[in-house]
Amino acid sequence: MTARVLLPWPDLAVPPELTTAVWDGRGTPPDALEQVEFYVLPYDSGTRPFDLFGKLPSLRAVQSLSAGYDQLLPLLPDGVRLANGRGLHDLSVAEHALTLVLSAQRLFPRWFAQQQKRTWDRAHTRSLADTRVLLVGYGSIGRAIERYLLAGEAEVVPVASTARPGVHGVAELPELLPTVDIVLLVLPDTPQTIGLIGAAELAALPDGALVVNVGRGTAVDTAALTAEVAAGRLRAALDVTDPEPLPADHPLWTLDGAIITPHIAGGSDSFYPRAKRLTERQLRRFAAGEELENLVR
Amino acid sequence: MTARVLLPWPDLAVPPELTTAVWDGRGTPPDALEQVEFYVLPYDSGTRPFDLFGKLPSLRAVQSLSAGYDQLLPLLPDGVRLANGRGLHDLSVAEHALTLVLSAQRLFPRWFAQQQKRTWDRAHTRSLADTRVLLVGYGSIGRAIERYLLAGEAEVVPVASTARPGVHGVAELPELLPTVDIVLLVLPDTPQTIGLIGAAELAALPDGALVVNVGRGTAVDTAALTAEVAAGRLRAALDVTDPEPLPADHPLWTLDGAIITPHIAGGSDSFYPRAKRLTERQLRRFAAGEELENLVR
Repeated sequence: MTARVLLPWPDLAVPPELTTAVWDGRGTPPDALEQVEFYVLPYDSGTRPFDLFGKLPSLRAVQSLSAGYDQLLPLLPDGVRLANGRGLHDLSVAEHALTLVLSAQRLFPRWFAQQQKRTWDRAHTRSLADTRVLLVGYGSIGRAIERYLLAGEAEVVPVASTARPGVHGVAELPELLPTVDIVLLVLPDTPQTIGLIGAAELAALPDGALVVNVGRGTAVDTAALTAEVAAGRLRAALDVTDPEPLPADHPLWTLDGAIITPHIAGGSDSFYPRAKRLTERQLRRFAAGEELENLVR
Repeated sequence: MTARVLLPWPDLAVPPELTTAVWDGRGTPPDALEQVEFYVLPYDSGTRPFDLFGKLPSLRAVQSLSAGYDQLLPLLPDGVRLANGRGLHDLSVAEHALTLVLSAQRLFPRWFAQQQKRTWDRAHTRSLADTRVLLVGYGSIGRAIERYLLAGEAEVVPVASTARPGVHGVAELPELLPTVDIVLLVLPDTPQTIGLIGAAELAALPDGALVVNVGRGTAVDTAALTAEVAAGRLRAALDVTDPEPLPADHPLWTLDGAIITPHIAGGSDSFYPRAKRLTERQLRRFAAGEELENLVR
């Protein structure tokens, strides 16, 4: 029997009416794919999985496990639906954002340095509790971060591109920035977000404020942020930078008030179970002839 | 007018019927304390605040801002009520516990080491999401940690000294330990908790499990834990150790899978606003002739 669905993993719950083939994006794809109607793309395998489109004459729908699909759209055959992986990385990014915030507030760079010197030297630290956190970017990642922050009794001030009830618009940043302890940026890389936090915005923050970025490095003026951190006036905890990778000779690396991780917020174990659960839901919908979730075309 | 309440901070909301004096535990205490009926002890000032009891003939109630009060009880004049600071440190300890868990899961020692070498080298990490966390010690700190863990979509398995609906008893540890990814210890230092997690309990944990301790170091057999971490079989993230401070020549300091902080989980900014809010509530109750909260005598 020829496969009707092509999947990246063998260990999925598949409705009995579907026949399956498996390809993880490595090695040679399987044969007998003429009947494949639904193709779940292997994750993190570059553009090679797209080459298979030409061998799938029965293809009706593609499931991507990434959120972005700009590269994929022009290659997708006419009439084929596309569902994306929106939300699968949210919790991974939210966890990393919280680790950056907590590490900065609770002085973890100090404790790691002391551990290397084997010294037991106590100090009082900042908290996350009771801080006022400006959450710039209030999509599904922002809301996952908010759940953590509220559990920790921080005050969350959400900001989106335009104001709506309970959410401020970016136009209000000048009034909001002087009132917060932490700015947490979760912005996509769009023409509207480039340079959103420049020298003037950073200057508007109170002394000692923490700037956290898990979105795109281009949202922040790196030179201006470096100057504020070097002066000891602001602190920074960044998973993304501009330029990226951060060059080895960049002064940010060695500043006391800076924590830098190499754009790894999205890459953790929490992705796989979520990707598998979404795939299994989509297979049930496909088998039942229902509309897929997360359709983008 | 002589003071009816003696407070450690001047910036509190005090009901109008109360007259106040302020002493922060440093320098000379104020005069004219004969009418003081309610004494809120200065925090973290050693035993010196207790010396004042003899100068307070009208004293009816004492508010301590610490959770422990064993030292204080024998010094308290007969007939004087005592309220403690239960809960004031909970969120600080919970935050630190979460920072330890997240730092270990998300490889923060690696990122800090890379930052010092100015290298941008990416890697996939564990998550907190989807892990099964054994929370041993389920008082107010344990519940504060649980709120964080649930926000992060971890599964929480609470354990207390005796089983009750929804909470396992310590007698069930042998069956529970092999089923979890993370053991988080939030135990007080009592005869029952000393050595609770010994070599056999550690051996029962699955490969790669993380042992986190923010309670008391004596709950864990340090030599057995050190051996498991040195073998690469378990990981550890500890704010408390046995002995404490950890000696400079102890092998735990330099193990790859160990994170050590110097018993500072409780000492962060989140204490003060909570201590002030409790004090203000107690002043309102005292002025209204109501029973105080957190009475321990």
